[in-house]
Amino acid sequence: MSFSPLIEQLISALRCLPGVGPKSAQRMAMQLLERDREGGRHLSEVLKLAMDGVGRCQKCRTFTEQEICNLCDSPRRDEKLLCVVETPSDVLAIEQTGGYSGLYFVLMGHLSPIDGIGPEEIGVDELLRRVDEAGVKEVIMATNPTVEGEATAFYISEQLQSQGVLVSRIAHGVPLGGELEYVDGGTLAHAMAGRKQIDL
Amino acid sequence: MSFSPLIEQLISALRCLPGVGPKSAQRMAMQLLERDREGGRHLSEVLKLAMDGVGRCQKCRTFTEQEICNLCDSPRRDEKLLCVVETPSDVLAIEQTGGYSGLYFVLMGHLSPIDGIGPEEIGVDELLRRVDEAGVKEVIMATNPTVEGEATAFYISEQLQSQGVLVSRIAHGVPLGGELEYVDGGTLAHAMAGRKQIDL
Repeated sequence: MSFSPLIEQLISALRCLPGVGPKSAQRMAMQLLERDREGGRHLSEVLKLAMDGVGRCQKCRTFTEQEICNLCDSPRRDEKLLCVVETPSDVLAIEQTGGYSGLYFVLMGHLSPIDGIGPEEIGVDELLRRVDEAGVKEVIMATNPTVEGEATAFYISEQLQSQGVLVSRIAHGVPLGGELEYVDGGTLAHAMAGRKQIDL
Repeated sequence: MSFSPLIEQLISALRCLPGVGPKSAQRMAMQLLERDREGGRHLSEVLKLAMDGVGRCQKCRTFTEQEICNLCDSPRRDEKLLCVVETPSDVLAIEQTGGYSGLYFVLMGHLSPIDGIGPEEIGVDELLRRVDEAGVKEVIMATNPTVEGEATAFYISEQLQSQGVLVSRIAHGVPLGGELEYVDGGTLAHAMAGRKQIDL
């Protein structure tokens, strides 16, 4: 025994969302049916529009329904400075710090030969062309501080070497506000090695 | 700074789902856009169909896109036995025990005068009519073991008194598999008061 066919279909369709198991899918379906049919209809419409309409920015590869995203289109950004990140969420995270005024290039992933993701899939050729054409002065590698992120940053740096552009990597070290005792060994070793003189 | 307008709309529309905050909504939107556009389109379609097509069973009030739900329509169920529950999920929970062969009546909530939910909203009149017309012999009150659930069960029992039908309440006591030490006082008191002689 189960719910009616259409309700079962709804529960199973909701499971395409990350982190949604059978119980939460059932709870979501019941909540929408009981209390928020308008919200459900709205979600259905927006979902369709977004799945069909969202593509990639032609300059930085981030998700957008426009040809060129708002950031790339902004006249207030320094186009000589380019920050390379893995995902659109990373762009948002850096923008929220409010301290960066350059542009971005979104790889949409990282190198992962096992999954068949090579330089072409993450747009390395486009990146090289962009650096060349826009006369970029500095490329900041802000891929994740993971094995794959490091490897991707290293590979791209090598490719950029011949273009005579400054390539930098965001600093690794202890995060602010934590306690040294709980920081993992790799991070701590990086923080020690990357120490800076205190200017008095 | 934020994502493009359409993506922001998608993130905000996803928040109509229970338990989905800004961060998980963002993660869901990104996951669908990156990896599962087909799943997103499918969810959009099913969502629309369900929001528009799911109504109430004319006999038991549960959610269904049919006039009469499969359970009420089944010739194998004992229609002299009626179990009153609060939600369609409760029907499913009882069905999964596999031990009940009667029919159901779904209140779709419980009495809650503060929220303006009175006997009419939970279909008490329909219940009385159904008990009368189908010649029901026993009504099992399986509302939740909460203050509101108890009050609702008590109110409905009173209304049924004049119809000469047996009204019962599911047993309250210690749940199977737990440890007595961790059972709350109210449940334990109920379990003591409702003790049964052991037949040897």
